[in-house]
Amino acid sequence: MADRIKLGMVGGGRDAFIGGVHRIAARIDDKYELVAGALSSTPEKSQASGADLGLDPSRVYDDFRQMAIREGRLKAGIEAVAIVTPNHMHVPAALEFLRRGIHVICDKPLAATLTEAKRLARACERSDALFVLTHNYTGYPMVRQAREMVAAGDLGAIRVVQVEYPQDWLSTDLEASGQKQAAWRTDPKQTGAGGSTGDIGTHAYNIARFVTGLALEELAADLSSFVEGRQVDDNGHVMLRFKGGAKGMLWCSQVAPGNENALRLRVYGDKGGLEWSQEDPNYLWHTPLGEPKRLITRAGAGSGGAAGRVTRVPPGHPEGYLEGFANIYTEAAEAILAAREGRKPSGEVTFPTVTDGVEGVAFVDACVRSSQMGARWTKLRM
Amino acid sequence: MADRIKLGMVGGGRDAFIGGVHRIAARIDDKYELVAGALSSTPEKSQASGADLGLDPSRVYDDFRQMAIREGRLKAGIEAVAIVTPNHMHVPAALEFLRRGIHVICDKPLAATLTEAKRLARACERSDALFVLTHNYTGYPMVRQAREMVAAGDLGAIRVVQVEYPQDWLSTDLEASGQKQAAWRTDPKQTGAGGSTGDIGTHAYNIARFVTGLALEELAADLSSFVEGRQVDDNGHVMLRFKGGAKGMLWCSQVAPGNENALRLRVYGDKGGLEWSQEDPNYLWHTPLGEPKRLITRAGAGSGGAAGRVTRVPPGHPEGYLEGFANIYTEAAEAILAAREGRKPSGEVTFPTVTDGVEGVAFVDACVRSSQMGARWTKLRM
Amino acid sequence: MADRIKLGMVGGGRDAFIGGVHRIAARIDDKYELVAGALSSTPEKSQASGADLGLDPSRVYDDFRQMAIREGRLKAGIEAVAIVTPNHMHVPAALEFLRRGIHVICDKPLAATLTEAKRLARACERSDALFVLTHNYTGYPMVRQAREMVAAGDLGAIRVVQVEYPQDWLSTDLEASGQKQAAWRTDPKQTGAGGSTGDIGTHAYNIARFVTGLALEELAADLSSFVEGRQVDDNGHVMLRFKGGAKGMLWCSQVAPGNENALRLRVYGDKGGLEWSQEDPNYLWHTPLGEPKRLITRAGAGSGGAAGRVTRVPPGHPEGYLEGFANIYTEAAEAILAAREGRKPSGEVTFPTVTDGVEGVAFVDACVRSSQMGARWTKLRM
Amino acid sequence: MADRIKLGMVGGGRDAFIGGVHRIAARIDDKYELVAGALSSTPEKSQASGADLGLDPSRVYDDFRQMAIREGRLKAGIEAVAIVTPNHMHVPAALEFLRRGIHVICDKPLAATLTEAKRLARACERSDALFVLTHNYTGYPMVRQAREMVAAGDLGAIRVVQVEYPQDWLSTDLEASGQKQAAWRTDPKQTGAGGSTGDIGTHAYNIARFVTGLALEELAADLSSFVEGRQVDDNGHVMLRFKGGAKGMLWCSQVAPGNENALRLRVYGDKGGLEWSQEDPNYLWHTPLGEPKRLITRAGAGSGGAAGRVTRVPPGHPEGYLEGFANIYTEAAEAILAAREGRKPSGEVTFPTVTDGVEGVAFVDACVRSSQMGARWTKLRM
Repeated sequence: MADRIKLGMVGGGRDAFIGGVHRIAARIDDKYELVAGALSSTPEKSQASGADLGLDPSRVYDDFRQMAIREGRLKAGIEAVAIVTPNHMHVPAALEFLRRGIHVICDKPLAATLTEAKRLARACERSDALFVLTHNYTGYPMVRQAREMVAAGDLGAIRVVQVEYPQDWLSTDLEASGQKQAAWRTDPKQTGAGGSTGDIGTHAYNIARFVTGLALEELAADLSSFVEGRQVDDNGHVMLRFKGGAKGMLWCSQVAPGNENALRLRVYGDKGGLEWSQEDPNYLWHTPLGEPKRLITRAGAGSGGAAGRVTRVPPGHPEGYLEGFANIYTEAAEAILAAREGRKPSGEVTFPTVTDGVEGVAFVDACVRSSQMGARWTKLRM
Repeated sequence: MADRIKLGMVGGGRDAFIGGVHRIAARIDDKYELVAGALSSTPEKSQASGADLGLDPSRVYDDFRQMAIREGRLKAGIEAVAIVTPNHMHVPAALEFLRRGIHVICDKPLAATLTEAKRLARACERSDALFVLTHNYTGYPMVRQAREMVAAGDLGAIRVVQVEYPQDWLSTDLEASGQKQAAWRTDPKQTGAGGSTGDIGTHAYNIARFVTGLALEELAADLSSFVEGRQVDDNGHVMLRFKGGAKGMLWCSQVAPGNENALRLRVYGDKGGLEWSQEDPNYLWHTPLGEPKRLITRAGAGSGGAAGRVTRVPPGHPEGYLEGFANIYTEAAEAILAAREGRKPSGEVTFPTVTDGVEGVAFVDACVRSSQMGARWTKLRM
Repeated sequence: MADRIKLGMVGGGRDAFIGGVHRIAARIDDKYELVAGALSSTPEKSQASGADLGLDPSRVYDDFRQMAIREGRLKAGIEAVAIVTPNHMHVPAALEFLRRGIHVICDKPLAATLTEAKRLARACERSDALFVLTHNYTGYPMVRQAREMVAAGDLGAIRVVQVEYPQDWLSTDLEASGQKQAAWRTDPKQTGAGGSTGDIGTHAYNIARFVTGLALEELAADLSSFVEGRQVDDNGHVMLRFKGGAKGMLWCSQVAPGNENALRLRVYGDKGGLEWSQEDPNYLWHTPLGEPKRLITRAGAGSGGAAGRVTRVPPGHPEGYLEGFANIYTEAAEAILAAREGRKPSGEVTFPTVTDGVEGVAFVDACVRSSQMGARWTKLRM
Repeated sequence: MADRIKLGMVGGGRDAFIGGVHRIAARIDDKYELVAGALSSTPEKSQASGADLGLDPSRVYDDFRQMAIREGRLKAGIEAVAIVTPNHMHVPAALEFLRRGIHVICDKPLAATLTEAKRLARACERSDALFVLTHNYTGYPMVRQAREMVAAGDLGAIRVVQVEYPQDWLSTDLEASGQKQAAWRTDPKQTGAGGSTGDIGTHAYNIARFVTGLALEELAADLSSFVEGRQVDDNGHVMLRFKGGAKGMLWCSQVAPGNENALRLRVYGDKGGLEWSQEDPNYLWHTPLGEPKRLITRAGAGSGGAAGRVTRVPPGHPEGYLEGFANIYTEAAEAILAAREGRKPSGEVTFPTVTDGVEGVAFVDACVRSSQMGARWTKLRM
């Protein structure tokens, strides 16, 4: 076995949510070893968080810049860094590591503004380091299966794409209570101009693009802020027109009671349809036109190679969110190891990159502009 | 028991679909007796169809005008007529009966054009006869339950309404094969300017209105005709803005493989949500914010008075499409009997009327206009 | 159209439950006309109930024997009678009509005792009249589909049959409250020796037999009366051994909270499996070994001739309990009309007969005996 | 953070299935470090497997006895060992480690024979080391939730327990093909006297016991071997009688096409019911008598402390099989660390122990004996 990849982390200290997810995801397939961290912008909290994780105190940093400089100079410094801060910190942090040749694994959305996102994209072009965006839902085996089936033509020419991501946790003004996750996700300075569109709409958009391979022509959006005083959208209604003629609808909401993380994708072509739901991720409905609906299960009959490559346990033993997330980390590990060894990665590289990240931010930007202009048809500024 | 209502029928001969449904619906609660018919515009077919149904040959007519005249003069002529023709014939037929004081039970959409729909509305105002539109999905007990819960404030202020009605039967150019149902439903002269919007979008729109009680402010629509050569839309994407600030999305499609009659309504307020699906009509999900989801079943615990009034059998014994349809007929019967007896109907009168019908046609009209103007926000011309 | 069959009814007056179901079932396809009734053993209630139904008062009787005698002599007397009384009255009533050549449509179970059941079977042999037992669940289209698939060998050799029918309505001692349905169904004198086994276990047993065609070799039963003071079983656990080697389990319960009428059948052979649930009757899962599960829908793709013959409306428009019940009535009507006209019935005659009824009572009898002997393997006394 | 627990593994080399699951489970919460292994009884394979896992070659052993001796003497030898061999090797391996004070984490069932199981239980009594049995399904959060609700009296007095675990992977004689998993699991010398009863019936029995807390009084079993030539049962039908009067049914099968790992538990008391399915593990149905069914979701509303303690991610982001398995490992780690530090474990210790293991083997033994005696009621020989 190759040596595990030495990993640092920016953000993810005590009270954070997504940092712990990244750490488990990195651990599941044993390809990474967390050795350093700038876990909080508060030095004491960073140190305490590092101690929780068993890190060597000398490699727990007060800020990411210090970490990038020091780790970049260490003989056995980190090879990769996971950036799990609020959105507006993604780019400044990533730039520091990229310029030192340290691979970046970054949470989504890529940036709080399109300008920054593009700046990061240019930096990626100049760097030898890899940039991986954790649009984790693309890591689910049955999402890979769906993509493989569309690519194989099982659905024929795609006509209609219905994607939605409703939640309910912001049905009240939770941000007023000081809840940390709610606070930064509803603050335009930290989260960007889009609220639900940025936080979950980008996931919905990304998965639709990932599975169908269709490029967007233009969109028409009607965004709302239902909770009084909320500064960003908490509900987005978007109509989509894809190049080549397919049409779609995207709905994201954080004010839909009874919905936890109900990301759901439905794709219809002239030969058949597909339906997938994130909350029941081991199932994929396939409906060939004129035949009974078929329920394809992860690792079960009808499940093909693309899903098989990211599957750990037999059918009927459900894999979940963490395993899907781990698949992104493990595919990134293969690319990092290939880079380390000067070889080409084995297998298809499917993890999302900075390009997907820029497109996600451009999607939010276009939604906001379209909505301001009365849902006018609007193109992405890529 | 009061004497059964003597019923005539226009349309619904051999090869027709919806006529048979109306006849069973009329029979289930034993309130009607079919005694006359102009079942087809082809005289031989009308007679043969009448014989199939055991009608007295002297009361089987070659055309509806003849029937209206003769039955209007008979001492024991029909009190009510069911009109189950293609859309463009609804208004001409209805006018003949209304002017003779014969109650009309008419299939939807009300008319092929908004002009005709309004003409009928005016005729209804001038007539003492009742006009009942069979937006049958409003007859399902759990739709009544949903409406009652919204009205009672169980959901709080409504914010988001997601409604959809996908089918797949027109995924190919079935109309080219001469299939009768496909032929008239895709012919603008018979069906009107809207295809899927008229045939099923009106149902989706109507049920959203019925349950929420919200009035539409404006809509933005993007209609498509995916099947080559098709003259009307077979897919409609519509964004909705309701008076008072609620937002919605409506999707209707006849080209979504795997969907049979997947009408589905989801309503979200600041206190909770509701979800209902026509294909599993005995269930209603209620999701009070911050509590576990609850599955209310027809006639089961949590099911209230509005549902109870239109329920026949105990919980766990499913009622279906025909029973929901029968509920419209039975409520119409009560109104007709009340009219006959010069009294007020007992209970709430909930069946759809000409007003709902005009609004449905105005909805189609607005969708078509909006789509032609690039999904511009458009008001109904009521 | 042939003249409708003149029907009488025994039982089914005010406060009864199943009588109303039979009347709707008889009406749905317009093959019957209810013209006479002995609707209650209380003369006033019988008359009042007859008036509710619009019956001619001269044909409303105080008791079934009087009705059988009078109607048997009338020129246009009833051709058939529906018996919808508590169980112990089925046989005495049926005998009166059978001996006068009046066809009998009888609710299940056939009788309260095996002795009586066999007496009735002998009477049926001696009579020209038909005897139809309303094991209504066999009327569901997808149950017909399942049976057709097993017969066609789609499942291969059957190995395992799992059938269950849980309810919850007798979780408390409802009979103590005087609720009429609970009272007679828990009184051994009216219901027979089996409680849940007789009321719903017979349905479960019947549907397993109907779909698989397997004959029972022996059973081992463990019956319980969980509610204190209850005189009959309210939960039955039964292991089944079929001739030829297949094995099965049957569970019936009236004390399982959350279950309304959750009759569910699962059949597994060496080539595939089937699953069907009464509460979602328009779906049938088919699982060919080594292939994805398929969801066959009523009237949809994959649905064959046997289901099609008992289907009224297109796929996606659910049919329910009443339509399934009506299918038994309509098939009985064809047999009755054929008898009237001295011809063979068209199509397959699939309605349950007295033989199925005797077997159902023998099943209850065997369960009770087995349970008393410590779940000893026990054969039916047919 | 405390130092990670040094872990060895017996079995789990190339071609094995469950070893990889144990390794991920041990890794997810970062409490263990795999440092040694006797991964196969074939020395070359053991070494190659160790290399795959990045183990120090000097700590890869040819057999478990050698590993127990060497690691027991090392200063930094393993503190715990995971035993993931076929069943008949569990006891001989466990004895070697227990006698050297090395904690044992062992796959189920505990042993191939009851004699051996009891021998191991006695050895556990004499050892200071812990013994943990990986009845992993008890690690699912919603199983913990169910147990907590039963204990809190939410269901009232338990009356009926329905548990089943059907699979389909042994529907053909896969063992004849040389497939390794099938071969040893159908060989009585390696697997024990029970086939499906030992492999999956023990899981079903264990989870019913874990959730309800009820002790078994006796059982009556009918076991079958449907596949020709199979030497152990591949289908088990079992009736259960619990102390205190509750009754149950248990079904396990490996010949039920369409079932992957469909472990499902339903518990009914006089106040309500619960339903849980392993393939959809994040949901728990709760049905309080006389109220609508409630769907409790992992980490969502209605989910309590017991579930919360073994939950990693927010509601709507599904956790799966590996996380449930990891919960057993992590609870074992707390007990091991407490032992290391001479303190009491914090929180409730809920992992299954040797006692559960003996009971599982006694369950299989009783099923086999009962079945041989014609399903006679049989007690466990504990």
